[in-house]
Amino acid sequence: MATTGKAEEQENPAEPGTVSGPQETPAPETGADEKLAELEDRWRRAVADLENIRKRHVTDLRRETEAERARVAAAWLPVLDNLELALAHAESDPSAIVQGVHAIRDQAVRLLAEFGYPRDEETGVRFDPNRHEVVAVVEDPATEPNTVTGVVRPGYGTDRHQLRPTAVTVSKSQG
Amino acid sequence: MATTGKAEEQENPAEPGTVSGPQETPAPETGADEKLAELEDRWRRAVADLENIRKRHVTDLRRETEAERARVAAAWLPVLDNLELALAHAESDPSAIVQGVHAIRDQAVRLLAEFGYPRDEETGVRFDPNRHEVVAVVEDPATEPNTVTGVVRPGYGTDRHQLRPTAVTVSKSQG
Repeated sequence: MATTGKAEEQENPAEPGTVSGPQETPAPETGADEKLAELEDRWRRAVADLENIRKRHVTDLRRETEAERARVAAAWLPVLDNLELALAHAESDPSAIVQGVHAIRDQAVRLLAEFGYPRDEETGVRFDPNRHEVVAVVEDPATEPNTVTGVVRPGYGTDRHQLRPTAVTVSKSQG
Repeated sequence: MATTGKAEEQENPAEPGTVSGPQETPAPETGADEKLAELEDRWRRAVADLENIRKRHVTDLRRETEAERARVAAAWLPVLDNLELALAHAESDPSAIVQGVHAIRDQAVRLLAEFGYPRDEETGVRFDPNRHEVVAVVEDPATEPNTVTGVVRPGYGTDRHQLRPTAVTVSKSQG
C-alpha cells in the first residue's frame, strides 16, 4: 500500500524540504522553503491520519456489530432457560406447562418491544401499506372499506425499524 | 460526493518529490508561492476529508449496529410464532404441548449456534476457567481432580465470543 509507505516516511523529519539546500539561497527563500516543508509535512500527516482512520473504521464496525449481535442474542438466553424449566416441570406436573409457556411467550414479546420492536396486532384500524401485508380481502358490509378486520400473523417493529409487517385481512375498498 | 472528488485529485502525480526542485528554477519566488498555495490547498482538502470521514464513520456505525440488532431479533420471531402455535394446539390437545416445546427449545439452541454461540453442557472435561464458572466443588474420588462433574446451567459461545460461561460443579483438586 503506497499510502502507508508515505505515512512511514513522514515520521522521518529530514525530508524533501531540506533538499532545497538553504546554503545557496538568500533569506526570503529560506522562509518560503521552511513554509513549504511545514505545509508538506502537515499535508502528509493529514493523509496518514486519513488512512489510519479508515482502518480504524473497519475495525470499529466489526467490533460494534459483534457486540450488538452478542447483546441481542444474550437477551434471549432467559427465554431459552425458561423453556427448559417449563419442560422440566412438565415431567412432574403436565398441566403446568401451558401456563409456563404463556409466560415465556409474554417474556419474548416484551423482549422484542425493549429492543424497539413492539408487537402490532391491532384490528379495526385503517389499512396502512407501511405496516400491513394483506393476505386476504374480505367482504364486510358492516365495516368501513380498507379496514383491518383480522390479524393472521402479528407484526413487530415501528415504521422506521420494522422487523416484519403485520399480516392482515382487510375489508374491500369501495369502487 | 465531494469526498470522492477530493480523493481522486489527491492521487494526482504532482507529488512531494517535486518540492525539492525550486532552488534551480529561474523565478524562484513565484514558483515557491504557487507551490505554497498548492500544498496548502492539498492540506486543507485532506483535513476536510478527515472531517467527512469521521462524520460518515458515526453514521455507518449506527446504521450497521441497527441492522445487526434487527437481524438477530428477527431470527427469533419464528421461535415466538412457534410458542404461540404450541399454545393454540394445547387448547385442543394438551398432551401435544410438551413435544412442541421440546422442538422449540431445539430450534432456539440451533439459532444460537448459527449466530456463533454453540451450546456447551459437556461433563467429564477438564475445568477451564475461560468457559466454566464453578458453582460447587464436589468430593468425587472416582473422578480425576479438576474435572467438570455436572452442568448446572449450559453455557453459550466460544472462547472468543462467549455469551455466558457454563455453570458447573467440579471435582476437588488434589492438594
